[in-house]
Amino acid sequence: MSWRNNLRDVEPYVAGEQPKMSNLIKLNTNENPYEPGEKVKEAIQSFEPFKLRLYPDADASKLKHLIAEYHGLEDDQVFLGNGSDEVLALTFLTCFNGQNPILFPDITYSFYPVYCELFNIDYKTVALDDAFKIKKEDYFNKNGGIIFPNPNAPTGELMSVDDIEDIIKHNPESVVVIDEAYIDFGGETVIPLLKKYDNLLVIHTFSKFRSLAGSRLGVALGNKELVSHLYDVKNSFNSYPIDALAQVIGEASIQDSEVIKEHAKKIIATRERTKKALKEMGFTMTDSYSNFIFIHHDDYDAEHIFKELRKKHIIVRYFNAPRINQYLRVTIGNDEEMDAFLEAVKEIIQAF
Amino acid sequence: MSWRNNLRDVEPYVAGEQPKMSNLIKLNTNENPYEPGEKVKEAIQSFEPFKLRLYPDADASKLKHLIAEYHGLEDDQVFLGNGSDEVLALTFLTCFNGQNPILFPDITYSFYPVYCELFNIDYKTVALDDAFKIKKEDYFNKNGGIIFPNPNAPTGELMSVDDIEDIIKHNPESVVVIDEAYIDFGGETVIPLLKKYDNLLVIHTFSKFRSLAGSRLGVALGNKELVSHLYDVKNSFNSYPIDALAQVIGEASIQDSEVIKEHAKKIIATRERTKKALKEMGFTMTDSYSNFIFIHHDDYDAEHIFKELRKKHIIVRYFNAPRINQYLRVTIGNDEEMDAFLEAVKEIIQAF
Repeated sequence: MSWRNNLRDVEPYVAGEQPKMSNLIKLNTNENPYEPGEKVKEAIQSFEPFKLRLYPDADASKLKHLIAEYHGLEDDQVFLGNGSDEVLALTFLTCFNGQNPILFPDITYSFYPVYCELFNIDYKTVALDDAFKIKKEDYFNKNGGIIFPNPNAPTGELMSVDDIEDIIKHNPESVVVIDEAYIDFGGETVIPLLKKYDNLLVIHTFSKFRSLAGSRLGVALGNKELVSHLYDVKNSFNSYPIDALAQVIGEASIQDSEVIKEHAKKIIATRERTKKALKEMGFTMTDSYSNFIFIHHDDYDAEHIFKELRKKHIIVRYFNAPRINQYLRVTIGNDEEMDAFLEAVKEIIQAF
Repeated sequence: MSWRNNLRDVEPYVAGEQPKMSNLIKLNTNENPYEPGEKVKEAIQSFEPFKLRLYPDADASKLKHLIAEYHGLEDDQVFLGNGSDEVLALTFLTCFNGQNPILFPDITYSFYPVYCELFNIDYKTVALDDAFKIKKEDYFNKNGGIIFPNPNAPTGELMSVDDIEDIIKHNPESVVVIDEAYIDFGGETVIPLLKKYDNLLVIHTFSKFRSLAGSRLGVALGNKELVSHLYDVKNSFNSYPIDALAQVIGEASIQDSEVIKEHAKKIIATRERTKKALKEMGFTMTDSYSNFIFIHHDDYDAEHIFKELRKKHIIVRYFNAPRINQYLRVTIGNDEEMDAFLEAVKEIIQAF
């Protein structure tokens, strides 16, 4: 026997790389190309460092209030965590303790099965249809919980609020978690359904729409009973996950909402323009409602394009996984970045 | 059946309150009364907000390197988390998976049993002796792991490096975790033992000694195999727990180490002076090597003093728990704060 026998062995999630090379065009982790906003700048500049000696507000109550107000909810319907990954982890730990396996798509955020392994949660993946869409009827069977992103990742495909409502209606015995990390790039949120269904939890993040991936702010919105269970679990794990600076940055970001919405519009316009140019090169793609596109070419190997782009210091995301290993997920950067990307892709396929 | 049946019910840890009243003398959560240092100020002032659009370095590699260098360790011996509470949570999840119950003192950091409940870890508490000291022989029995703070909390009592080495020697089949949150206020660290024992894990925090409770930076130091298991679990939970600003703040804090050591010396001097004054009022206390004291008076009820202090806007920590419900834990503030505290205590016991 050795102390090693007491150790937990798990296969961790692998995030998109953060390469340290210079002159990089980084289109691999769905970061926003625009700045977070003026109020965020001011919040950092006016922050008094002496305050750091104190623990932050464990409830981040001011930020919670501003988020509630922004979405037309009550404060106690808002749960905050250290990025939406932590919020998701705590959601799995809190909400998925039933007898039956939980359900999520076979092609989706690849962190979900990792959480399941970590917390010993039984799960079953449900295949997307051939067009990479979620079929709602597949989620009408007995289960211990349901989770999927809307828009889905890495496909970007959006499900309508009505279809999600149908899934919730068919699952009064499960918590249905809709991960809306990318909802603000053209999708319609299910937040209004919170008024009608108490088994719905909606996950948001400050990382994408609000350009604050560096600040680690994630949100869950639900009925107050569900939210209070999340807090009990969070307070059994880490009392103060959101540091003092992240709190004031988050507060400022809510005030910056108008300019951030303008940035999202620009990203959507760039996305549509990029799709058009790629189609002209013979690419096909899913109907993305997010700040990334998911592209395929019948004639050129995806991994080859991925590697050639990397040589040109352009990083996109390639998943060597069943069904999607001939696709690339490309974050929508600013216009200049996407022009460089399109130019590079053109060169690569011409040189094939 | 209802979705509620799938929810986890836990009894969370309750942290010391962060009251929002003004004119407060806050001596309840062991915060450092001094500022974090000039380099930390500069790091915040010179931070470029545009960087927040990007995910932070998931490995916090620069900060990790500086911490390793500071302690004379290799980079891959350093694990970083969102405050030492998160580091502890991930340590419990990673290191305590044996067949036997883990051991910790009956009087210690009250978050330990909460982690055990959250992760279904079997534990047995070991009574401190009548002087509130840990007896090393009590940890020579079969167990699934050992954890205690050194100095212990809330007693502040220090165990010698030799005694801890004896515990480690007797436990080759367990991971022994020494939580050194308060080690820099007069104690001797066990970090040098990492050269000899690969089943030792040492936990540090930036919250107390480095005046950065607001930044949420916790550290585990151990052999690289143990540390890599911690990273696997962390990367199954949250890829980026340490935000971009916290990373540069932590880096700056290491550069601020000299002034921070001076602050610790001042806190120690204030502690000794405070102890002396309290003894003159008839208080008894443990032999604290930390930035708090644990005091008792034979003639005056601890909870009464606690409540009366609160009326005077002085907050200390009272634990309504077996064996220690006639004690108060008092954080050492600056000299002015401790003078006000001593004056208030004098008034309270005179008015009894």
